[in-house]
Amino acid sequence: MNVITLLTDFGTADGYVAEMKGVLVSNAPSATLIDLSHEVPAQDVAFARLTVARYWRRFPVGTVHLVVVDPGVGTAREAIAVESEGRFLVGPDNGVLSPALFSLSARVVSVPVPITASPTFHGRDVFAPAAAALAQGTSLDELGDVFHSPVRLRTPQPRRDGDGSLHGEVLTIDRFGNVMTNLVVRDAGGVVVAGARTARLVRTYGEAASGELVALVGSSGFVELAVRDGNAALTFGLSRGHAVSRPAG
Amino acid sequence: MNVITLLTDFGTADGYVAEMKGVLVSNAPSATLIDLSHEVPAQDVAFARLTVARYWRRFPVGTVHLVVVDPGVGTAREAIAVESEGRFLVGPDNGVLSPALFSLSARVVSVPVPITASPTFHGRDVFAPAAAALAQGTSLDELGDVFHSPVRLRTPQPRRDGDGSLHGEVLTIDRFGNVMTNLVVRDAGGVVVAGARTARLVRTYGEAASGELVALVGSSGFVELAVRDGNAALTFGLSRGHAVSRPAG
Amino acid sequence: MNVITLLTDFGTADGYVAEMKGVLVSNAPSATLIDLSHEVPAQDVAFARLTVARYWRRFPVGTVHLVVVDPGVGTAREAIAVESEGRFLVGPDNGVLSPALFSLSARVVSVPVPITASPTFHGRDVFAPAAAALAQGTSLDELGDVFHSPVRLRTPQPRRDGDGSLHGEVLTIDRFGNVMTNLVVRDAGGVVVAGARTARLVRTYGEAASGELVALVGSSGFVELAVRDGNAALTFGLSRGHAVSRPAG
Repeated sequence: MNVITLLTDFGTADGYVAEMKGVLVSNAPSATLIDLSHEVPAQDVAFARLTVARYWRRFPVGTVHLVVVDPGVGTAREAIAVESEGRFLVGPDNGVLSPALFSLSARVVSVPVPITASPTFHGRDVFAPAAAALAQGTSLDELGDVFHSPVRLRTPQPRRDGDGSLHGEVLTIDRFGNVMTNLVVRDAGGVVVAGARTARLVRTYGEAASGELVALVGSSGFVELAVRDGNAALTFGLSRGHAVSRPAG
Repeated sequence: MNVITLLTDFGTADGYVAEMKGVLVSNAPSATLIDLSHEVPAQDVAFARLTVARYWRRFPVGTVHLVVVDPGVGTAREAIAVESEGRFLVGPDNGVLSPALFSLSARVVSVPVPITASPTFHGRDVFAPAAAALAQGTSLDELGDVFHSPVRLRTPQPRRDGDGSLHGEVLTIDRFGNVMTNLVVRDAGGVVVAGARTARLVRTYGEAASGELVALVGSSGFVELAVRDGNAALTFGLSRGHAVSRPAG
Repeated sequence: MNVITLLTDFGTADGYVAEMKGVLVSNAPSATLIDLSHEVPAQDVAFARLTVARYWRRFPVGTVHLVVVDPGVGTAREAIAVESEGRFLVGPDNGVLSPALFSLSARVVSVPVPITASPTFHGRDVFAPAAAALAQGTSLDELGDVFHSPVRLRTPQPRRDGDGSLHGEVLTIDRFGNVMTNLVVRDAGGVVVAGARTARLVRTYGEAASGELVALVGSSGFVELAVRDGNAALTFGLSRGHAVSRPAG
């Protein structure tokens, strides 16, 4: 089995995703297509990078991840293909594939843009053909030349002060209004502060009262702020980039 | 062929669904994944239950239905797996799987939550592995111990008065603004009353004038209120729980 | 491999798409289902027609395209199945399948509506069974009688004046706010005028300044208006039907 996953910010209604799928099915008829999302906020590379970080390594070795969030289409940015820990990723060189680029095993090639490619739709004319080729067994080296300087974006690291306090920020908000931060805590207990609010650090939603703002370690290992039976981001006015901290013990 | 269907309220952009699919593909590589929806209104168990009622029996025997609408994740609610009329269902014990639980053949087990499971994401760490195991041929009994008291929610029944009038309520509104009620009618003709409005009971949209509010038997067998070429819910201010009735003949 | 693609305006949450997929999987167990979109604006046949135009020929010969955007369900409109350039299309006879109907090879049959079909849901009871049958190898002629007068809608053609100027209109807006027009240009250079705005005709986004309104040939061959790093439709108040023109040389 060869799997191609798709992540885009295209929405589906306009038919761009449909065109890409037509190319994938035509070029890799035996591959299985798996939609991950087409609802990434438009042109939000930072958001998409966090999504890619969640899933790229959860799929089996050999999976091809096609990622097209590409505000720079038609500019000089490169098109790249990556092999990392046995998975393949294809997309624009704008940092969206970063989660796979920090592995020591990561190899990157630059995918040439055919002269016939639409300058507004590399998803269809560059990335989908490359993903299909990889799914059909083409090697990374056959796709293009080694590319040494891909854009690599890192999740901002929190700062630990001398008194043991931890200072970070909100990375993103999920559909439920849960607030993802970049804080990583090693020991339970204590509180997390976000603006004028203080949230108890609990282990599960079950420990929270209905409507209470709490902090807990989320499914990616980062501290989240959440309101049981509610929407933390809306209720407390939290959004991307807001400062959060965990005071010293 | 073994099919796993997915219904969640996760949206897709955040990558939660992507993580679940990574687990499914890894654990059940030969299964076919079929998205049903990830756009269930957030934490709306009642809505999801009606959606499950529509589809669970339309798929062939052997299908595994994974349903994750789970506001109680991280509380004491059980995780369950169900075998009913040859189909399997996996999800939280909050009533969302009720449509399959009223069958005489229904069997239910409690799926243990591994100590390593994220307390905020049983979809990835409990439900997806259980669904994959069922798709790979694991029997229900191998998944967990028999569970005797699953939450079973019923669609509210309309009341029939002595004069033959029928009194019910609005169950849900669909994307087109069509208003689903719990009324079931055995004979055509007459009208349906919703608040200050009266709607002729017709057989097809073709019998309605453009813009007219009509009632008709919908595709699930319940009476719907609809406006031809319009949005009944918006136009007439109808929403979930509103009283509707059919006066005596 | 036999592929069935799905395009609807149903959204997914209500479970209508789920019911259709249950029918498809039951009736064509070996077919591969590929979602194209379920987010077409409700009952917007004109929008869906443009989407179908994008993708129907991108899929391999033998593909079955199921298209259900059907405001006339339950009226006298026909249900049709089409064979055109080796692809099959199934849907209502309201013009949504037009892109495949202009081919010289196009053949059309009228699909009978079973007496048991829900008058509000031909997607489940008429179109999905027909699509499944085609995917299973049923011939077009076995599905129904030849139908000679399907509704065929054309993209409005721009007008070329004696002075060489070209006068067209906005066809649709995509998710990024890019404005699709019906203008086709044979030579680069010059400008496109939309209301009080004038946009340079460039080849790629890379030639535009950030925030600049430009025109360029989009991925379907039509002229688009776009703002680099912005939303042209919102910024300049452009919507479907607005006049656009390219002045003479």
